[in-house]
Amino acid sequence: MNFETLIATRAPRLLRLKISRPHHGNSINATLIRELSQALDGAERSEECRTVVLEGEPGLVCTGMDFQELAARPEADPGETAGIAGYMKLLKRFTLSPKIIVCHVEGKVIAGGMGLVAASDLVLSTSRAEFALSEALWGLLPCCVLPFLIRRIGFQKAYAMTLTTRSISAQEALAIHLVDELTQNLDESLRKLTLRLNLLEHETISDLKRYFHKLWTINPEMEKLAVQEITRLASQPRVRQNIANYAIDGAFPWERRDAVAQK
Amino acid sequence: MNFETLIATRAPRLLRLKISRPHHGNSINATLIRELSQALDGAERSEECRTVVLEGEPGLVCTGMDFQELAARPEADPGETAGIAGYMKLLKRFTLSPKIIVCHVEGKVIAGGMGLVAASDLVLSTSRAEFALSEALWGLLPCCVLPFLIRRIGFQKAYAMTLTTRSISAQEALAIHLVDELTQNLDESLRKLTLRLNLLEHETISDLKRYFHKLWTINPEMEKLAVQEITRLASQPRVRQNIANYAIDGAFPWERRDAVAQK
Amino acid sequence: MNFETLIATRAPRLLRLKISRPHHGNSINATLIRELSQALDGAERSEECRTVVLEGEPGLVCTGMDFQELAARPEADPGETAGIAGYMKLLKRFTLSPKIIVCHVEGKVIAGGMGLVAASDLVLSTSRAEFALSEALWGLLPCCVLPFLIRRIGFQKAYAMTLTTRSISAQEALAIHLVDELTQNLDESLRKLTLRLNLLEHETISDLKRYFHKLWTINPEMEKLAVQEITRLASQPRVRQNIANYAIDGAFPWERRDAVAQK
Repeated sequence: MNFETLIATRAPRLLRLKISRPHHGNSINATLIRELSQALDGAERSEECRTVVLEGEPGLVCTGMDFQELAARPEADPGETAGIAGYMKLLKRFTLSPKIIVCHVEGKVIAGGMGLVAASDLVLSTSRAEFALSEALWGLLPCCVLPFLIRRIGFQKAYAMTLTTRSISAQEALAIHLVDELTQNLDESLRKLTLRLNLLEHETISDLKRYFHKLWTINPEMEKLAVQEITRLASQPRVRQNIANYAIDGAFPWERRDAVAQK
Repeated sequence: MNFETLIATRAPRLLRLKISRPHHGNSINATLIRELSQALDGAERSEECRTVVLEGEPGLVCTGMDFQELAARPEADPGETAGIAGYMKLLKRFTLSPKIIVCHVEGKVIAGGMGLVAASDLVLSTSRAEFALSEALWGLLPCCVLPFLIRRIGFQKAYAMTLTTRSISAQEALAIHLVDELTQNLDESLRKLTLRLNLLEHETISDLKRYFHKLWTINPEMEKLAVQEITRLASQPRVRQNIANYAIDGAFPWERRDAVAQK
Repeated sequence: MNFETLIATRAPRLLRLKISRPHHGNSINATLIRELSQALDGAERSEECRTVVLEGEPGLVCTGMDFQELAARPEADPGETAGIAGYMKLLKRFTLSPKIIVCHVEGKVIAGGMGLVAASDLVLSTSRAEFALSEALWGLLPCCVLPFLIRRIGFQKAYAMTLTTRSISAQEALAIHLVDELTQNLDESLRKLTLRLNLLEHETISDLKRYFHKLWTINPEMEKLAVQEITRLASQPRVRQNIANYAIDGAFPWERRDAVAQK
């Protein structure tokens, strides 16, 4: 498999997918979503493959939506809603795929990147990991991330992360179950984990993920609501301006507001 | 704003509300509920105000219902249900108000006081904080508190606190997410927190609280159930007697029961 | 009360039930389910009894289903579904009984044994406790355990325990609220706890358990789904073979698979 935004490596019973858009802050664009989905197609066609490991660049796992691409789009672009719906579909697919999705975190995860973490079956991280939901600073909300994040870390922690936009350390993330295992040696931890996971039969993984899905449904109404709400927020002129300004000169919304207020 | 049960202080983008009924153990009566609601009206009318800080007396944040007032009431007083419904409405309003409600805890929080904490957006506390649900000792239950408390700390911790009536320390409260931040310097922590919160635009706070409300609905049926159940419990002769005895001579229900058993 | 699988001891306001099938790894069979239910009948008839303590052998609290008995059964035995439904009913009864069910853990709890822990009102353990959901190794799932376990420890921790089949220590179990109190002296902790619990009136315990049930319903559809799914899994020839092999010579499923693969 040859990708533009991913580096894929095979090992016995394992597929490793490294998000690689270093010149775009490892942000999420339409190509990344499509290629992640294609890579999953491949893994699911293989009877032999048990686990898909998702990782980023050292130091930077994944930021959210690609603001440069977003700012370049015409207003009310129908492709935008399609892109968001594709992202939501990908997160849901993580939770239903008959492959075990293990997220490997060794750096920053921001905004939309948090969805990939929250929807993964298991999350391993080093102490270098750092997590933040920065959306509210831009007048946005992590609409698609939250159903999966609340399921993983509970209502209050997801709420506090969204409202304060404060980043949390790997240690804090472990305490609130955002991270399942904190390790100093990701490869060794992954080796031990996959040894255990490989004891399970293929059918059992499918059965397990299907049954858990019934116990905590993220239902179609909620998915639709998430896509609608983020589309609504992102199309507001105020928010579009925030994003456009940042794409041009890296200025944060409050810096502009403060500058205006001081005039 | 001039209140009987509250001391209100304004600061830039901030309204501080200190519950002040020191001669009644900072307990909750109808006046306090009405005045908290009026203070919120004022905050919500101000475009400039971002955050409302709710606090108590040093050492004693808030106990539950005012038992003296309750004991003085005629049986089956329709005002009682109205009072409880008003309390439930206030808690729900905390979660929906376009202002950020920060609870400041530097002392004991007991029974109904726990509702004010649980329904707040964020909770800061010092190590002096102490939390307990004592209702079951009186034959009551924290009916209105629980929907908000379960949302915040999960089912089991809310269950164990209700059943054992044991008080928990600030450190334990942090571990179960009843407290969001434990600090030795509340003013400094509040300053840092509001600096962050002030980066958010007014509309974003509204959008955020509205969206989260849809992800974890405390629905009208549950609110009605809560008010009905606490009204039913509080009107039982056994429970009324427990409260009346305590109002007269400070005797706890089990002390009376033991005395009767020993005769 | 005289039981085959339980040792029952009375103390003031207390009934202690010790699971005692030492020659069958303290596993769960139809007799144990019936006798636990009968013991609860007795406790519920007594106005004086407040608390039922459930415990196991030192070192081994409870493993899951008795595989020897299961392997000896004819295929598609209707008694099997009845047995599972009885187990599910017993767990639900723990959460609704007007007696307080305290689980005492001083050893291993595996698979179906986890349901008894998860459905208990309160769980006390020593550092000797160890918890695991091993079902997936056999091609099974902890279908009946999960609704109660998710309620107690949240979705992600229940998910990770099921998927990794890894056992967790008493300290970890405390951190995720599977254990309510970790103690070095179970008898002393139990004494202090029951002193507090005995302050509650009989009616209050009933009211409390009924009200909490309404706040987090494990509804009949979910109960039915759980029984159907575990029945379906357990009747698959592949899974029956796994269990039969283990019953004969203690071989784990993956050992057989590896042996076949090496031929």
